[in-house]
Amino acid sequence: MNIDGRPTRTIEPLADRAGVSIIDQTRLPFRYTRRILTSLDDAAEAIAVMRVRGAPLIGATAAYGLALAMNANPSDSGLEAAARSLISTRPTAVNLAWAVERVRAVLRPLPPAERADAAWAEAARLCEEDVAINRAIGAHGEALIRAVAQRRPGPVHVLTHCNAGWLATVDWGTALAPVYAAFDAGIDVHVWVDETRPRNQGMSLTAWELGQHGVPHHVIADNAGGHLMRHGKVDLVIVGTDRTTANGDVANKIGTYLKALAARDNDVPFHVALPGPSIDWTLADGDAIPIEERAGEELTHVQGLAANGEIVEVRLAPAGSAAVNPAFDVTPAQLVSGFITERGLCEASRAGLLRLYPERV
Amino acid sequence: MNIDGRPTRTIEPLADRAGVSIIDQTRLPFRYTRRILTSLDDAAEAIAVMRVRGAPLIGATAAYGLALAMNANPSDSGLEAAARSLISTRPTAVNLAWAVERVRAVLRPLPPAERADAAWAEAARLCEEDVAINRAIGAHGEALIRAVAQRRPGPVHVLTHCNAGWLATVDWGTALAPVYAAFDAGIDVHVWVDETRPRNQGMSLTAWELGQHGVPHHVIADNAGGHLMRHGKVDLVIVGTDRTTANGDVANKIGTYLKALAARDNDVPFHVALPGPSIDWTLADGDAIPIEERAGEELTHVQGLAANGEIVEVRLAPAGSAAVNPAFDVTPAQLVSGFITERGLCEASRAGLLRLYPERV
Repeated sequence: MNIDGRPTRTIEPLADRAGVSIIDQTRLPFRYTRRILTSLDDAAEAIAVMRVRGAPLIGATAAYGLALAMNANPSDSGLEAAARSLISTRPTAVNLAWAVERVRAVLRPLPPAERADAAWAEAARLCEEDVAINRAIGAHGEALIRAVAQRRPGPVHVLTHCNAGWLATVDWGTALAPVYAAFDAGIDVHVWVDETRPRNQGMSLTAWELGQHGVPHHVIADNAGGHLMRHGKVDLVIVGTDRTTANGDVANKIGTYLKALAARDNDVPFHVALPGPSIDWTLADGDAIPIEERAGEELTHVQGLAANGEIVEVRLAPAGSAAVNPAFDVTPAQLVSGFITERGLCEASRAGLLRLYPERV
Repeated sequence: MNIDGRPTRTIEPLADRAGVSIIDQTRLPFRYTRRILTSLDDAAEAIAVMRVRGAPLIGATAAYGLALAMNANPSDSGLEAAARSLISTRPTAVNLAWAVERVRAVLRPLPPAERADAAWAEAARLCEEDVAINRAIGAHGEALIRAVAQRRPGPVHVLTHCNAGWLATVDWGTALAPVYAAFDAGIDVHVWVDETRPRNQGMSLTAWELGQHGVPHHVIADNAGGHLMRHGKVDLVIVGTDRTTANGDVANKIGTYLKALAARDNDVPFHVALPGPSIDWTLADGDAIPIEERAGEELTHVQGLAANGEIVEVRLAPAGSAAVNPAFDVTPAQLVSGFITERGLCEASRAGLLRLYPERV
């Protein structure tokens, strides 16, 4: 998508393979800065502290992390240590392990001297596939938005939670790909952006990238979605997913489940944009998904722009009060109206997924 | 309740009737400062900018606002202008209009020279009644917490939204009165405190007052309650209400409705602590409640404590992104397990309310 009118990807290898350029998303929406990762440790750190986030982009960064590791130490032990280090950075996103396994499987049979070349090539291939997947999700999801627009006049109101936009992927995004596709096709679309506490990915990332592309939007408190749905102000909910189990249960950013409940209570369609690689076919249902507990300080402290233009962190909680901070929740398949995948739309169920991914039967 | 071990009320008239002392809640949880209101305009400003908030405390402040107005101009036109000015400060809380009407009804028949005395006396009476109501709510609600404690070992986990504690009333609180009663009775109780975006009343007020009283608690994101309920970590939800309609629909801080949906989905009892004066018998159901839309800046900007000890405001949203900020939502009576009132527990329905308030038949 565009930044200041220029097509830009969230992750780009340097021409000489000395590094990988990412957007430091911890500085958004106040500063657009790119950062060069030059080592495995850089890549692991970028994932762990969420300079890059979003399941697909985490996967892409991990793939390039292996490539950087192969620059330095392409031995068997170097490969295994790099894979372990990357996988341990975040526990919930299935793309992370998937991307690492995929690149490792390519590298393992090769002699060490050939591994660096192969790793850079495989990481690039993985990124191109991500872009193609997201473009296809956009095309399939656009039909849902278009159908509302054809039914009645006025803007189509899409509510989204967290950031599953192009900043969460290599390009296009997952949940926002249909929005960009609809907007680019001239459909009058407006997005309700959940701010997405505690890390404010909606307020800081989704709002920023929609603004860069010119898509009309308003930020709302995570608390407000139910009220808006009760008053007929939401036509469609589209969210992303960090991991989806074989039965269609969806792990996504904490609070997604509450929006799904409100959508069902108000007959608002609730769709999950779902790249194939985020399906975890090894898990029968959502109860088996490990939920990452993150530091309470993510909730009790917040970063913002002070009047003097500095990015500062302030404390919100009283001195003696600690916080508990689960990062994801699970939305049961029964609350999901449907999946938007790169292969088309399907029901949120094992049968629905297998219809689109028959190779998994 | 106690501050630094000293029994303290949120609003206290000065001995010479020259003013009324309130806690400036916009400075909490970082600074405990009291502020003296000396005029009608001071009282209206304190309500409008939420130096005082919470339906019962707004009512008490409005009553004293009329008393301050009578100090200055006890004429018929002075009385009417003061009443209008106070009622217009906040549209949703029924206690505000109720308190103003009540004091005005006492003053109207009196000759102007007697109105100031009568207004100060009536405001004091209204405050004493609020304290008595909340103490009774605490006693009735304690039984719900005690019942869980007797059923199994370990702490009883109560989730609450916004601040309906003693900071929202003259003393004790409404939703938190049962918690204080249980805690003071030696019951092992722990509170999940929703931070309550956008104004963070949970993070800044509920956490602070629980901490002052020594009640174990953790702050959570508003997004986290559904996840905690799915995992059996919430025994009971207790919230307050700004206005309850005759059929039992509940207007309360934005986001309450989402918690009620999650409670129902997980068979967690969802109770609303309900002082009689917050029932609006004139409204048939919640659709008729006007919902206050507040400035988007409440969401896009936040106040916190910087590392240097200063209270500063920072911006969270990107420059071009606006916010929409409905302050309340309506939870339909069907989602409410029961009301905790000063007269006992009842079903959230017209029949349930009329059983306790038969004078309203």
